Amino acid sequence: MIRFENDYTEGAHRRILERLWETNEEQTSGYGTDEHCEKARAYIRKACDVENADIHFLVGGTQTNTTMIASLLRPHQGVVSAITGHIAVHETGAIEATGHKVLTLPSEDGKIQAEQVKELYDAHWNDTTHEHMVQPGMVYISHPTENGTTYTKSELEALSKECTECGLPLFLDGARLGYGLVSEECDLTLADIARLCDAFYIGGTKVGALFGEAVVIMNDALKKDFRYMIKQKGGLLAKGRLLGIQFETLFEDGLYFEISHHAVEMAMMIRKAFAEKGFSFRYDSATNQQFPILPDDVREELGKKYSFSLWEKVDETHSVVRFCTSWATKKENVEILIEDIQAL
Amino acid sequence: MIRFENDYTEGAHRRILERLWETNEEQTSGYGTDEHCEKARAYIRKACDVENADIHFLVGGTQTNTTMIASLLRPHQGVVSAITGHIAVHETGAIEATGHKVLTLPSEDGKIQAEQVKELYDAHWNDTTHEHMVQPGMVYISHPTENGTTYTKSELEALSKECTECGLPLFLDGARLGYGLVSEECDLTLADIARLCDAFYIGGTKVGALFGEAVVIMNDALKKDFRYMIKQKGGLLAKGRLLGIQFETLFEDGLYFEISHHAVEMAMMIRKAFAEKGFSFRYDSATNQQFPILPDDVREELGKKYSFSLWEKVDETHSVVRFCTSWATKKENVEILIEDIQAL
Amino acid sequence: MIRFENDYTEGAHRRILERLWETNEEQTSGYGTDEHCEKARAYIRKACDVENADIHFLVGGTQTNTTMIASLLRPHQGVVSAITGHIAVHETGAIEATGHKVLTLPSEDGKIQAEQVKELYDAHWNDTTHEHMVQPGMVYISHPTENGTTYTKSELEALSKECTECGLPLFLDGARLGYGLVSEECDLTLADIARLCDAFYIGGTKVGALFGEAVVIMNDALKKDFRYMIKQKGGLLAKGRLLGIQFETLFEDGLYFEISHHAVEMAMMIRKAFAEKGFSFRYDSATNQQFPILPDDVREELGKKYSFSLWEKVDETHSVVRFCTSWATKKENVEILIEDIQAL
Amino acid sequence: MIRFENDYTEGAHRRILERLWETNEEQTSGYGTDEHCEKARAYIRKACDVENADIHFLVGGTQTNTTMIASLLRPHQGVVSAITGHIAVHETGAIEATGHKVLTLPSEDGKIQAEQVKELYDAHWNDTTHEHMVQPGMVYISHPTENGTTYTKSELEALSKECTECGLPLFLDGARLGYGLVSEECDLTLADIARLCDAFYIGGTKVGALFGEAVVIMNDALKKDFRYMIKQKGGLLAKGRLLGIQFETLFEDGLYFEISHHAVEMAMMIRKAFAEKGFSFRYDSATNQQFPILPDDVREELGKKYSFSLWEKVDETHSVVRFCTSWATKKENVEILIEDIQAL
Repeated sequence: MIRFENDYTEGAHRRILERLWETNEEQTSGYGTDEHCEKARAYIRKACDVENADIHFLVGGTQTNTTMIASLLRPHQGVVSAITGHIAVHETGAIEATGHKVLTLPSEDGKIQAEQVKELYDAHWNDTTHEHMVQPGMVYISHPTENGTTYTKSELEALSKECTECGLPLFLDGARLGYGLVSEECDLTLADIARLCDAFYIGGTKVGALFGEAVVIMNDALKKDFRYMIKQKGGLLAKGRLLGIQFETLFEDGLYFEISHHAVEMAMMIRKAFAEKGFSFRYDSATNQQFPILPDDVREELGKKYSFSLWEKVDETHSVVRFCTSWATKKENVEILIEDIQAL
Repeated sequence: MIRFENDYTEGAHRRILERLWETNEEQTSGYGTDEHCEKARAYIRKACDVENADIHFLVGGTQTNTTMIASLLRPHQGVVSAITGHIAVHETGAIEATGHKVLTLPSEDGKIQAEQVKELYDAHWNDTTHEHMVQPGMVYISHPTENGTTYTKSELEALSKECTECGLPLFLDGARLGYGLVSEECDLTLADIARLCDAFYIGGTKVGALFGEAVVIMNDALKKDFRYMIKQKGGLLAKGRLLGIQFETLFEDGLYFEISHHAVEMAMMIRKAFAEKGFSFRYDSATNQQFPILPDDVREELGKKYSFSLWEKVDETHSVVRFCTSWATKKENVEILIEDIQAL
Repeated sequence: MIRFENDYTEGAHRRILERLWETNEEQTSGYGTDEHCEKARAYIRKACDVENADIHFLVGGTQTNTTMIASLLRPHQGVVSAITGHIAVHETGAIEATGHKVLTLPSEDGKIQAEQVKELYDAHWNDTTHEHMVQPGMVYISHPTENGTTYTKSELEALSKECTECGLPLFLDGARLGYGLVSEECDLTLADIARLCDAFYIGGTKVGALFGEAVVIMNDALKKDFRYMIKQKGGLLAKGRLLGIQFETLFEDGLYFEISHHAVEMAMMIRKAFAEKGFSFRYDSATNQQFPILPDDVREELGKKYSFSLWEKVDETHSVVRFCTSWATKKENVEILIEDIQAL
Repeated sequence: MIRFENDYTEGAHRRILERLWETNEEQTSGYGTDEHCEKARAYIRKACDVENADIHFLVGGTQTNTTMIASLLRPHQGVVSAITGHIAVHETGAIEATGHKVLTLPSEDGKIQAEQVKELYDAHWNDTTHEHMVQPGMVYISHPTENGTTYTKSELEALSKECTECGLPLFLDGARLGYGLVSEECDLTLADIARLCDAFYIGGTKVGALFGEAVVIMNDALKKDFRYMIKQKGGLLAKGRLLGIQFETLFEDGLYFEISHHAVEMAMMIRKAFAEKGFSFRYDSATNQQFPILPDDVREELGKKYSFSLWEKVDETHSVVRFCTSWATKKENVEILIEDIQAL
């Protein structure tokens, strides 16, 4: 069985394991106060083209979202998100468990637009009973989205401007950030993200690391006491250096982007094969997740040799499926898959 | 600087890193559903001499305690703990953040006794205003304790019996479980722990792993839906196999106990050196943490070459300090320390 | 200005104030343990035709919903509700503040049907990633709904049966229960409600009392320690007898239903007047809330003399408004309003 | 049975009931936006000698404490309180249920002093692991305390100064505020309280009202969005005018202080009787709660005719009991009690 079911089927990039070996016997202080973390922070600041960002390393995405959102909001506030957002769907109510409602906006492709935020904000404040409703307190987006789509620079600029005008901090979930930034359809750079968001995270788990997410806090008002929050939410890794070492490796010379490129290249090959065979796609994704619509017999046939996800039923005889590539995807496996697609 | 400040200054045991290398390119399913996790569960069940335990792998101690306690209690209930318990002191209010009070019992050595639980329980239910107070809902102990002490089998049996009679599940925090079980003063086995507790966890972070804690749930009533809780609390690692691989390695042939032995042996050497020099100890610990009481000039002198923790001031000129050993402590470093102690 | 804006514009029914006077100097024990509360419980049990219900008195609706739902759910569970449900819209995230997501179902008229619950339940359990999502843990309905509509006996029986099959306790918010039960279109009795729900509350605030809601818990499994929950959520009134006295008065001889009848009669008069004038209605309500669709000039004209709520805009020139009657609505005021409607 | 068991055994002061009658048919807007609430606010501001205080009316004490504290703290912060504080003991974990730890200070008499706050604050910030501990975020005191004692002006000034220096808002629980302010041993005025606290509440439930507490927020930084918090925590009474009417009555011409005087006068008579008979007292209270230490046979004898609380056992044969007076205590009943004490 060749697995395309998600982007965390393998361990870590070879260079990360090597670095863990090399540093294994070093004695360091705990909880992210070591030199590897410091170096990783410096590399990331440079990659973001900023000087004053606070950077923290956490273990996983749900933990990171929860810690950030719980840190930002007052008890009567909620977080605005696309209805498809990871926090709205796939975190077992982690946000609600910290006391906050997820205020969902409709979305066809996983993105939300500036006007939607404006409308929701105005609807709240224009309602005479607004004190009886959850107050919007921040905006959450993912980039790329759960549907593989990416924001354009002008979309993100508009969203950022609107958030600033409404006094709503903008937080970007970058679980797959690398795969978005290297995509041909994405005109955003890491520096743009840093400039336009109040906080965001750079995903490691799905992009070459064993695990780990790097939170970047740009807005000074959000920086205070964040390490307390990480500890309380269970994300302050004792051997914090493990996170530092991984992000050091990923960012010291561009490895993060290099392996992201590979994943997207593999995805584009798969996309092309399905397209040439006449299949259409549920979402217009130029990143590492592809969502072809397949007749059930084709799905069944491919399912004998490849693992991939059933995304949703389209009609009686067709379904959307998801093929995921990653930094670890082997070109030879993709080529075998393409042959099988062509032979359908 | 030679570090004795805690038991997480190095990476992982060599065999764990080797195994991570060997398995790195394997493609597995996520979230702890892979075969490495299954094997690790089987090894742990065997080590506990049980058949029906539910076993889950989480990343760190605070996360594990929080997930377990939040899963167990109803909203009006609290968790009983020694006033020195990790959950009461060093988790930034993680338990309270899930809505629950920590009901503390006084303790000189980090342990609590059956009679104390009985008294607290009776005091609650005999109070006519008990509905105005937090109801005791479970009991938390650590073994070894934060002070390096261990429960005897008769103490744990009495505690377990009392908890059962009061209907209070007993949960044991085993962040340093290995270092307790191999201690000469501890007559408890892992099977005893499994028999006497409703749930407990076997600490990996401090005992040879990069990170990771194995939760063992014995009581059927506590098993339901625990994976939802792990996910919500941010502990469901995407690449769950990393935890499985580590515990597989630690438990397939007794490595966990072997390296625990080493740590305790190193601690006993340090203990002997301080004792022979006439220093007394704050706690009577036969495990990997030692708490000598040092005059400030001695503390300062040793502090030039070794890192260790200041535990508490005793008087104007004396302090309790903590020296920690671990699976990774090098005998040569301990010998240098001993020489320096002897030369004081 | 004659007020039809809501059903809590006046104080309490005259007989309640009289009873408060008569009992004012009595010395009673606190927190709902007095004899007035006991009598009120007995009257309510009789009205429900049950013997073993647990009955508690709380102060307001949001508090009651929050206490009940937080008491019922485990941390990873959510409460199923119509998207228009009070808990989903108008309680400032009180449910989320206790850690739980509101799982909303679409609804045109404020009601949800058995099949919707079945579908949501199946969708959860059939999803292979269900542990990553909030588990449905109970069902919340309101009767009458926020839109003035009522469940039929067959609808509630189907819903109750489905909930039982899914293991989801059914909780009914009866903030306006009286106005629903006496409605011509409602074939449900209080005894039916008690038979078909696991718990519900009988609203006093909007039906003759100064304040107060009577929670009736039918399902034994939900009864345990509920008073702890009331205290924790701030609902255990020191002078609990105030609640007892009010419900005693409302239920000793049918006053609750008598005054409910009056409110609905007044509402039907208003409804008839609008209908005869050719106005249509947003919801088909036979209870004390009426939702006519008015042209903006009509709305403005009536707004000079009467207060009522703007419910929602329909188009550029029309809006839905809400006229509320209550136990306190004076017939003479309704007659003046009707004249003004006829004169439009 | 003559009741001295607490200060909420009767209904409300006659003038309050009269006012409820007079206003019963008035139609007002809901949720505290009516004119009675506005007038009550004006009277209270005048009594506090301030112009810019925000004033809100809530139903009960636990609700008020919870709403205030949850509004003030960030998630990683706790509230500092005497170990005897109401929030630490008698609110069923309501504070923890909002996610916050109560950081307790030892207290013999229910009060805490400036130096204790300073020590706790310094201990936190001087600890190198402070991020692993709950950060002190505010200070809670009660006045009079649960033990009937009162702060002197110099004590409160010192505490207020220390809190300001530490950046910790000071919140005063005034459930029995009237009984403290009129006490002979208290040199504080309501204006002093307003000047020295960031927020406090004036208790109505125990001082003449049917129910109700008036929150006064002095510190501008704490005012924002407080009504959202009240709604979320279930304290926004639909018929808010009921609270307005009660506080209007209590503060329009000094009734609050007049009836407080009566209660304290009654308490002093009881105190004198016990003292003259040679009984000593557990706390030195000059307010409406008296804590004589009685031999068990005396306690039993008095218990046949009077209800009072058992506070705590002193030794095998003696107990502390509590006698409470209130605005409603009848002088004739006190005189009968005194006779019985004298006849012991």
